[in-house]
Amino acid sequence: MTKIVSGRPIIVRYGEIGIKSPPVRRRFENRLISNIKNIIKGEITITQGRIFLFPENYQQALLSLGKIFGVVSYSPTLVTSTDYNSIKKSLRSYIQELIHQKEFSREKTFAIKCRRVGDHEFTSQEMAAFCGAVVVEETGAPVDLSNPDLRIFVEVRGPKTYIFHEKIPGLGGLPIGTQGRVVTLLSGGIDSPVAAFLMMKRGCAISILHFNNHPYTSDSMEKIKKMVRKLKEYSSGSKMNFYTANYGDFLKKCVEDTPPRMTCVLCKSGMYQIAEKLARKENALAIVDGSSLGQVASQTLPNILATHHSTSMPILSPLIGLDKVEIQNIAEKIGTYKISIIPDGGCSAVPKHPETNAVLEIVIQAQQEIKMDDHLEKVFKNLRLNK
Amino acid sequence: MTKIVSGRPIIVRYGEIGIKSPPVRRRFENRLISNIKNIIKGEITITQGRIFLFPENYQQALLSLGKIFGVVSYSPTLVTSTDYNSIKKSLRSYIQELIHQKEFSREKTFAIKCRRVGDHEFTSQEMAAFCGAVVVEETGAPVDLSNPDLRIFVEVRGPKTYIFHEKIPGLGGLPIGTQGRVVTLLSGGIDSPVAAFLMMKRGCAISILHFNNHPYTSDSMEKIKKMVRKLKEYSSGSKMNFYTANYGDFLKKCVEDTPPRMTCVLCKSGMYQIAEKLARKENALAIVDGSSLGQVASQTLPNILATHHSTSMPILSPLIGLDKVEIQNIAEKIGTYKISIIPDGGCSAVPKHPETNAVLEIVIQAQQEIKMDDHLEKVFKNLRLNK
Repeated sequence: MTKIVSGRPIIVRYGEIGIKSPPVRRRFENRLISNIKNIIKGEITITQGRIFLFPENYQQALLSLGKIFGVVSYSPTLVTSTDYNSIKKSLRSYIQELIHQKEFSREKTFAIKCRRVGDHEFTSQEMAAFCGAVVVEETGAPVDLSNPDLRIFVEVRGPKTYIFHEKIPGLGGLPIGTQGRVVTLLSGGIDSPVAAFLMMKRGCAISILHFNNHPYTSDSMEKIKKMVRKLKEYSSGSKMNFYTANYGDFLKKCVEDTPPRMTCVLCKSGMYQIAEKLARKENALAIVDGSSLGQVASQTLPNILATHHSTSMPILSPLIGLDKVEIQNIAEKIGTYKISIIPDGGCSAVPKHPETNAVLEIVIQAQQEIKMDDHLEKVFKNLRLNK
Repeated sequence: MTKIVSGRPIIVRYGEIGIKSPPVRRRFENRLISNIKNIIKGEITITQGRIFLFPENYQQALLSLGKIFGVVSYSPTLVTSTDYNSIKKSLRSYIQELIHQKEFSREKTFAIKCRRVGDHEFTSQEMAAFCGAVVVEETGAPVDLSNPDLRIFVEVRGPKTYIFHEKIPGLGGLPIGTQGRVVTLLSGGIDSPVAAFLMMKRGCAISILHFNNHPYTSDSMEKIKKMVRKLKEYSSGSKMNFYTANYGDFLKKCVEDTPPRMTCVLCKSGMYQIAEKLARKENALAIVDGSSLGQVASQTLPNILATHHSTSMPILSPLIGLDKVEIQNIAEKIGTYKISIIPDGGCSAVPKHPETNAVLEIVIQAQQEIKMDDHLEKVFKNLRLNK
């Protein structure tokens, strides 16, 4: 990553927003800017589909931009006036910096990529040729247009010209808050934080719901809080509410008063129902979970059908079509994996042979027999909003 | 890819199946073997978590294995007896082949990776050292254990030893047919075939449902049939039923008798309802679609909630958390992209300003006013199973 130089703008590129209708695009752009402002102090302007950011703390800004959804890529730049002399002078000093930082030398090949927006007395190709000659004169390095060691971008925008060589990839996705709110179930496992992350990536504000199954699980609140803090790093511009439900009493009812194999199905069904109640309270419009088809015994199609049944709100499972290894790869990339693998002892309410082929009618009957609605109402009333 | 040599076994590795309980694992293994047998003629055995395939047509088998879900990787091998002399002889001839095919030379570095299953008079390390010496003696090529140009794998399994240098990546996932059946909506776009593919990857047999919106769309049956044929390449071992619904008359009703902005919401809701009817007929347990949150105007949370409402079966949207560019990348990899982009003119029933913030009560009212149930019943009755 380039050396820190304050006072220089960072160009921020955003993606899918660009193809939306003008009013939608404006709304998305405004939201992205406000999400950026929320964690990066400094000046910010937007013009012709690019955001120009003049951060107070350059290093912190570069790190933060990597955690803001909607950002496709960003480049620390050197800005100068659009005239041959200024561009020549700036390009020479930019090249000298790169040599000083050992990112370039006369042994390396390079290419100039020039883009131009506005009216100028030169074409992009002419400017690229001019800049190429400047670099050759300065360093003697050979040009290689097809596979260079270093690409130097010269972006001419009206009276200003930006020079840069890095396009740091962002997270992509849509700005958080452009797609409303969802309630995401969060366990201590690998999958659920990834599911939450993917829905945030698609623009959702999230309300997190964690079920504390004590005494069937050990106290893992520290782990969950750590996970919530990690997810919060990606939530700039949206309020992330974090609720916990005491679920042990209800689970005891399932374990003691229904056939052992039913426990997991009733447990999951209850979670969705509580999540729906919470969603109505939070003005959320969907429930999100980390289900991945066939990954474990409970994640079969019959079980999904039976556990979804008592919930009328959409249940979105962004991992439903992913392999465990694909989910783990995302978890590692976003930093949740190492929290997920902190040992927490698992859930002792899980029977030896959990149901894998739930029959809807039998599940409904069991729900009625234990008066599930009443129990869930009680769990919901005691839901706790964590600070 | 290695030169075709018939009579040699291909080692096939499978993944997630390995971590399941013994009876589930056996069921998954049997299914995988039967799916392989379905498109590859030859002998097949399974032992200690590996499948050994002796195909009649080596080249065709290598291509086919790349399209069978559940296969993590596969390697064309040279097999020999487990004794120093045989291994030495076979390894020398294997190396000569690689040199002949310009995949190896004395200028390239190499490493031997040895694995051993069973009782032998040598350890894996001793065998690796022995094989390394054989290659050095044969070629003079230098050993580099950390970053070699060529890895040669020597897998000792009881009385047999397998030599190979390639691990060709497979599709991963679970064998088709281990997870029951789903009905997948298939349009002419980029997303829906990818959604179908991902659910097949997680082990689902699929029944495809395409809605023909003529006269609001042009006749695109050729394109859809092409797409179905492409998906069929991945469906070994499962019956893929392909249905089309004539949806134009119902769409006409929506266009003419409801507010213009409602058309897309009612259209989508109707598709799910027909899909549910079909699912019951096909013994399928879920509906699959290509929704990606926020990608287009109709894919908002309020619209998802309103369109899901009249369907009681789970609607799985494996792309819900993916960016367009991620979906396109998968589409290109699996070969559906170039079919999706065949121009088909789009749907002329789409209003200028489609609803993006559907209100459930208003949608339900509109459905009642146009007697939607009756129309859908008619569409369902005329559903056509294509040959």
